[in-house]
Amino acid sequence: MRQAGRYLPEYRATRARAGDFMTLCQTPELACEVTLQPLARYPLDGAIVFSDILTVPDAMGLGLYFVEGEGPKFQHPLRDAAAIRRLGVVDPEARLDYVAAALRLIRRELAGRVPLIGFAGSPWTLATYMVEGGSSREFARLKTLLYDQPALLETLLAVLADSVAAYLTMQVRAGAQVLMIFDTWGGVLTPADYRRFSLDFMARIIEQLPREYEGRRVPVILFTKGGGQWLEAMADAGADALGLDWTVNIGEARRRVGERVALQGNLDPAVLYASPEHIRERVAGILEDFGAGSGHVFNLGHGIHPQVDPDHAGAMIQAVQAISPRFHV
Amino acid sequence: MRQAGRYLPEYRATRARAGDFMTLCQTPELACEVTLQPLARYPLDGAIVFSDILTVPDAMGLGLYFVEGEGPKFQHPLRDAAAIRRLGVVDPEARLDYVAAALRLIRRELAGRVPLIGFAGSPWTLATYMVEGGSSREFARLKTLLYDQPALLETLLAVLADSVAAYLTMQVRAGAQVLMIFDTWGGVLTPADYRRFSLDFMARIIEQLPREYEGRRVPVILFTKGGGQWLEAMADAGADALGLDWTVNIGEARRRVGERVALQGNLDPAVLYASPEHIRERVAGILEDFGAGSGHVFNLGHGIHPQVDPDHAGAMIQAVQAISPRFHV
Repeated sequence: MRQAGRYLPEYRATRARAGDFMTLCQTPELACEVTLQPLARYPLDGAIVFSDILTVPDAMGLGLYFVEGEGPKFQHPLRDAAAIRRLGVVDPEARLDYVAAALRLIRRELAGRVPLIGFAGSPWTLATYMVEGGSSREFARLKTLLYDQPALLETLLAVLADSVAAYLTMQVRAGAQVLMIFDTWGGVLTPADYRRFSLDFMARIIEQLPREYEGRRVPVILFTKGGGQWLEAMADAGADALGLDWTVNIGEARRRVGERVALQGNLDPAVLYASPEHIRERVAGILEDFGAGSGHVFNLGHGIHPQVDPDHAGAMIQAVQAISPRFHV
Repeated sequence: MRQAGRYLPEYRATRARAGDFMTLCQTPELACEVTLQPLARYPLDGAIVFSDILTVPDAMGLGLYFVEGEGPKFQHPLRDAAAIRRLGVVDPEARLDYVAAALRLIRRELAGRVPLIGFAGSPWTLATYMVEGGSSREFARLKTLLYDQPALLETLLAVLADSVAAYLTMQVRAGAQVLMIFDTWGGVLTPADYRRFSLDFMARIIEQLPREYEGRRVPVILFTKGGGQWLEAMADAGADALGLDWTVNIGEARRRVGERVALQGNLDPAVLYASPEHIRERVAGILEDFGAGSGHVFNLGHGIHPQVDPDHAGAMIQAVQAISPRFHV
């Protein structure tokens, strides 16, 4: 998950200097600065480029903007079939070079200390924002499209999958050593629709990615919020690891997916509101649930909340580093 | 799920006459009127009393009110341990008699045509509103309580469970022939916390309910939105049936719970945005997934959306009545 963010005062300072969120994302020096802030504060094992999943639809011409307190919006949401059919696969080198520039800069600054993670949104998740015009709770427009015109929705998802594949490939060339696909909204689908409209298009992305670069494996992590019911299917999509939210027991998940994939997760971000003592207990619980052996990347089960005390995030990281060695004998 | 609601013009007319939502709930004649509206329009197999899950915390003195477009709020949310410890088990006869009066009226008006369903919110779900002060996305206050002071949270949940048990018992005496417990927010918990803080307290309610009244079984339906991962545990809580949202395949759910409980569900309410033809296809799909035999109550997987065309709801009900007989040979 994103490591930088509003819970850090140093992030809020850079964000204020940038003026608005899009400038922060589109200015490589600023994106690099906020990417490195959590690493200066905490002994983390990885860095994740600071960006936003909606840069891809923005590059497709939808006009992304942010309204304070309301989340992301598009100036030109997809309102009819013609708008969907007009969309072409994005050329990331031409339209998203600012992300590549940020990755090159961050990679240089990291100087090999920790691996750098790149990411993108899943086609289904991007489609929710593109069709609804912003955040949604019920997804009335997109679900009407799904239930009434599934072939047209597949046309949209295919263009998005190929765009995301090109975008993630560019990220690898620019320095990303691990890739993560965020499917924030796959969990609002029926099991069959999840496979058809979310998972299959994530598999289509993974098929197109370079799985080795400069002689090293480029692992891909797949995360569907609310995907606990479909882990077996997710484990067959070609990814190296699955991200888990907190509604699944990580030990059960490990038994279900076996050795096919590693697991990332899965602390409820709300645990960080608790006292450091209780944070440590919950961290220990997850490490024990996973058990001995490799294949676990400790992480939150979703993004960190803006109101979290940075010292509490620190307590979590400290607990992981203190407790996890006993599971890796 | 609630059958009456804003999607019906006749409901909106009664609601306008009532002035505000609480008056509608608290005036037995008006609650009876809106309860019967869907039955006048559609060939339904059951009636569900029109009320709100938050009548119980209101009766406990929290002061429920509704702000247009913002959902329910409490004048006196639970802000500290003292406020929680001050709460006593509600006396439904004294504080919630308007619900009993509505049930008596509806039961008389129904004159045995269809069974009457009563309902209440789960203790965990009621606690989310009581501690947060209204609707929430992240449940920061309640989860802080859970992670830092679990015993205090259990004190609150126990008082709520005993209050809900008394309330549902009163509903049976007033004419409710089936009871439903709505756990709208149990799905935001970890599996272990779901059992400890939501399911166990629903089981505590069920233990206290009259399971027979006037010589007839009083079936209890348990519904946790997002509960698809824990159906086996839910099936052991003492209920007669489980409600399913649409993120689980009902045929799979049937195999998992076996003969222990009947199943209710599980059409995505957003299917009702689609054309009647596509609605029929989706209804047929669920009936086929469940398969032959008894033990299925067709229903939406959550509440009907206010923007739905009443004719589309009609198309769904017609499809169920046309297609389901072939599965009951």
